[in-house]
Amino acid sequence: MPSALDELKARLGRIADLDRAAALLAWDERTGMPPGGAQARAEQLATLAELGHELTVSDELAELIERAAGEVEGLPYESDEASLVRVARRDVERARRVPTELSGELARAASLAENAWVRARAESDFAAFRPYLERNVELRRRYAECFAPYEHPYDPLLDDYEPGLTTAELEPVLARLRDGLRPLVERYAGAGEDDSFLRGEFPADRQRALVERILASLPIPADERRLDPTPHPFLTAIAPTDLRITTRYDEDNLSMSVWSLLHECGHAIYENGIPHELSRTPLGRAVSLAFHESQSRMLENWVGRSRPYLAYLLPLMREAFPEQLGDIGLDRLYRAANRVERSLIRVDADEVTYNLHIILRFELEVALVRGELEVAELPDAWNQRMWDYLGVEVPDDASGVLQDVHWAAGAFGYFPTYALGNVIAGQLWELIRRELPDLDEQLERGELAPLRDWLRERLHRHGARFEPAEMVERLVGGGLDPAPLLAQLEARQAEVTGAARH
Amino acid sequence: MPSALDELKARLGRIADLDRAAALLAWDERTGMPPGGAQARAEQLATLAELGHELTVSDELAELIERAAGEVEGLPYESDEASLVRVARRDVERARRVPTELSGELARAASLAENAWVRARAESDFAAFRPYLERNVELRRRYAECFAPYEHPYDPLLDDYEPGLTTAELEPVLARLRDGLRPLVERYAGAGEDDSFLRGEFPADRQRALVERILASLPIPADERRLDPTPHPFLTAIAPTDLRITTRYDEDNLSMSVWSLLHECGHAIYENGIPHELSRTPLGRAVSLAFHESQSRMLENWVGRSRPYLAYLLPLMREAFPEQLGDIGLDRLYRAANRVERSLIRVDADEVTYNLHIILRFELEVALVRGELEVAELPDAWNQRMWDYLGVEVPDDASGVLQDVHWAAGAFGYFPTYALGNVIAGQLWELIRRELPDLDEQLERGELAPLRDWLRERLHRHGARFEPAEMVERLVGGGLDPAPLLAQLEARQAEVTGAARH
Repeated sequence: MPSALDELKARLGRIADLDRAAALLAWDERTGMPPGGAQARAEQLATLAELGHELTVSDELAELIERAAGEVEGLPYESDEASLVRVARRDVERARRVPTELSGELARAASLAENAWVRARAESDFAAFRPYLERNVELRRRYAECFAPYEHPYDPLLDDYEPGLTTAELEPVLARLRDGLRPLVERYAGAGEDDSFLRGEFPADRQRALVERILASLPIPADERRLDPTPHPFLTAIAPTDLRITTRYDEDNLSMSVWSLLHECGHAIYENGIPHELSRTPLGRAVSLAFHESQSRMLENWVGRSRPYLAYLLPLMREAFPEQLGDIGLDRLYRAANRVERSLIRVDADEVTYNLHIILRFELEVALVRGELEVAELPDAWNQRMWDYLGVEVPDDASGVLQDVHWAAGAFGYFPTYALGNVIAGQLWELIRRELPDLDEQLERGELAPLRDWLRERLHRHGARFEPAEMVERLVGGGLDPAPLLAQLEARQAEVTGAARH
Repeated sequence: MPSALDELKARLGRIADLDRAAALLAWDERTGMPPGGAQARAEQLATLAELGHELTVSDELAELIERAAGEVEGLPYESDEASLVRVARRDVERARRVPTELSGELARAASLAENAWVRARAESDFAAFRPYLERNVELRRRYAECFAPYEHPYDPLLDDYEPGLTTAELEPVLARLRDGLRPLVERYAGAGEDDSFLRGEFPADRQRALVERILASLPIPADERRLDPTPHPFLTAIAPTDLRITTRYDEDNLSMSVWSLLHECGHAIYENGIPHELSRTPLGRAVSLAFHESQSRMLENWVGRSRPYLAYLLPLMREAFPEQLGDIGLDRLYRAANRVERSLIRVDADEVTYNLHIILRFELEVALVRGELEVAELPDAWNQRMWDYLGVEVPDDASGVLQDVHWAAGAFGYFPTYALGNVIAGQLWELIRRELPDLDEQLERGELAPLRDWLRERLHRHGARFEPAEMVERLVGGGLDPAPLLAQLEARQAEVTGAARH
């Protein structure tokens, strides 16, 4: 007779398979699906979500977890077995609070809203998108109610991405970050290099060739990933060894494709490092979204915009675009890649202003979820805050409130994980610089395997065994702290603008 | 309270969604999946198949069907409602005979075997593939046993593709076809035009541009389909309005991409014509595989190699390949496109020899399923029959027994549907030529919408409402008959080789 633990694993494996299948359907929807497939795709995704939810909340599974808990009693907290039961129990207890119908409705509404968003964004027509967003907000509030009582209606949404983190814990971290960033923006915005040489004419096919060359140099096995263009880049893992990397080719902006590739590859390296034996279990994923983002932002910014790594990139970029970049030296590229600007678009924002874009979204979505702001008021509120925080006037909704897919996808509570990811990346980078003394020389050679190995050993191989607060404690011996990030940003900007003066 | 029929539709909708999701996973596996994803993909497909099977065989569904049957009593046989209950009941009764574990095993083994086949074919290494094929045969025999008693162990396999058709009914139809084809091969093989002008150097990117231009001229809405390259072309419908067309670009053979595109588009037009309101039900599919193939072979051969349609194609082909085809006139193209040859590869075979390739496979798979032939003996048996039937010597297994994916995919009983499809296409074409008197003029203009409309009205809109024998009877007022096909082949060859003599 199989143990309860084995039976549990088999059942969890099916749930994981449904999730991965849905991930492929969603990837396809965003990379290559014919538009005519939208309605059917919404139904298909709803069905997969409903079935996954039903399997997760079944009484049989809850009973199996309790029986398996008995079997693993006495095993170390960190062991695969104890961790599996602990994390599965948490997932199941949360899922059992949400009715299957609501779960299906959320998926269906999100799929329809994503399609409406694509059209609305193309035409900068918020009114066309508004009913879909209202529906998403209403459904998310109903979702949060499933977890009552709570301190804050935003807590249950946040908890989906950052297990254990509360709004009350998050707000002061983001406040310290905001207070530290504002003087940096004042001091450095517009002070750096003119980066117009990255904004000339860059034909998509040659960008693609360059990006594929960079990708080939990264420590991700070639037969475990593919690369596709999409309007809003993302990374999806269909398995740890089946990674779907995406990027965007803006023909008038080379930065987009190059650094968004590095960003998504940071995610990909994380997923690639999750042990295969965990991949069909609830441990087979990242600690949290913020931890995921720490990996992508680290590769994009702390590696990808560092002087030594740019020394590696520059010859590749020059070979791809000799007319545009033939005259550009490393100093200019370094300064341009780290230029601070008051800008409209989050995904184009530099590492200093980026978190202010996030904090704006965080505040607005908290207000939406609390009912303090109506969806109809959202464009005005957005534009007002863009002016207050970044001194930027928003010309149209396409480059304002319609720029991101997240709310269309129903993902409230997701945005702050980007800023937290930067905070964690800052804390990790401080540690890495101490522990990998040859890192700069490696980056100059484009050699990222040692960094990948360090991250795999310390972080990736654990999957979701630990909660975010536990993982931060294990890694840096303390809590979330924006100070290292702020210090690094300050130091880099001082170097960049100092160098610019010579 | 919802009716039993409504509840039944909701449940069948979920099953259809799982099928469609699996179709997308399978499409992805064959067009773009990183090789590293193979193992996980096999698990994912197995889970989807198992869940679909569990939902299909659940007692609740069987009870719902009986209750719904009560509700639709007295409705016309052809009505959506009566047809839905009738076809669902048949599907469910068949599925309930197959244990869930076996259903999952079949999917898992097929997925692994498909991957092994890709490698084995590349290296022409039958021995590497043999254990996977043995496993597939063993599992298919166990599957057939679920339907005992049967007249012939091949009957249950055939019935999966051709509902109601038996081996005893099929054999004489294929025998008449074979007996009619042999003299045609003797008479016409090698007698036609030299087609070497289609076998020069044709760069893939220019083939792709040509094929996309042809695709754009066909009556399939551009936002309801996409086109991808694959080693073994196929068509998958993720929805009637989300069609995945594939083709292959052989750089030394232009015929492959052009006529395989037309072939797959014949399938696509069929799926596109199935009413949307049927698409999440068991009626939302073709009558049978042979009917599906009748549509693809008709577009490929009776349209695609006809003189008037070639008059439309030739200028497009010339523009794409002016050096290769600039001197080629319509007569030469017509003769080359209809050249009969004793050849090795089924998918490259002309319309006369094609069915002999099929009959060979049919005989071998019947022998495998009956246990009269071991998998180990298969390459020799294959090579012997290729010699006997087509006078062809097989140089290696890659161009012999390893050429097709079907057995790797576990699809026994599938091959004869190709020949039956040709038979049905012949019967339909005879009728169409009578009922669409302006067809030739339309084909000369590349205007296929009138033909599409005729097919939609007579065939496509019915989905799977009727069984194959019923549908043939409704269309032509009789049974399966290879005589029209044989007469059309004979007439075309007489014209082609007669023209060649002038």
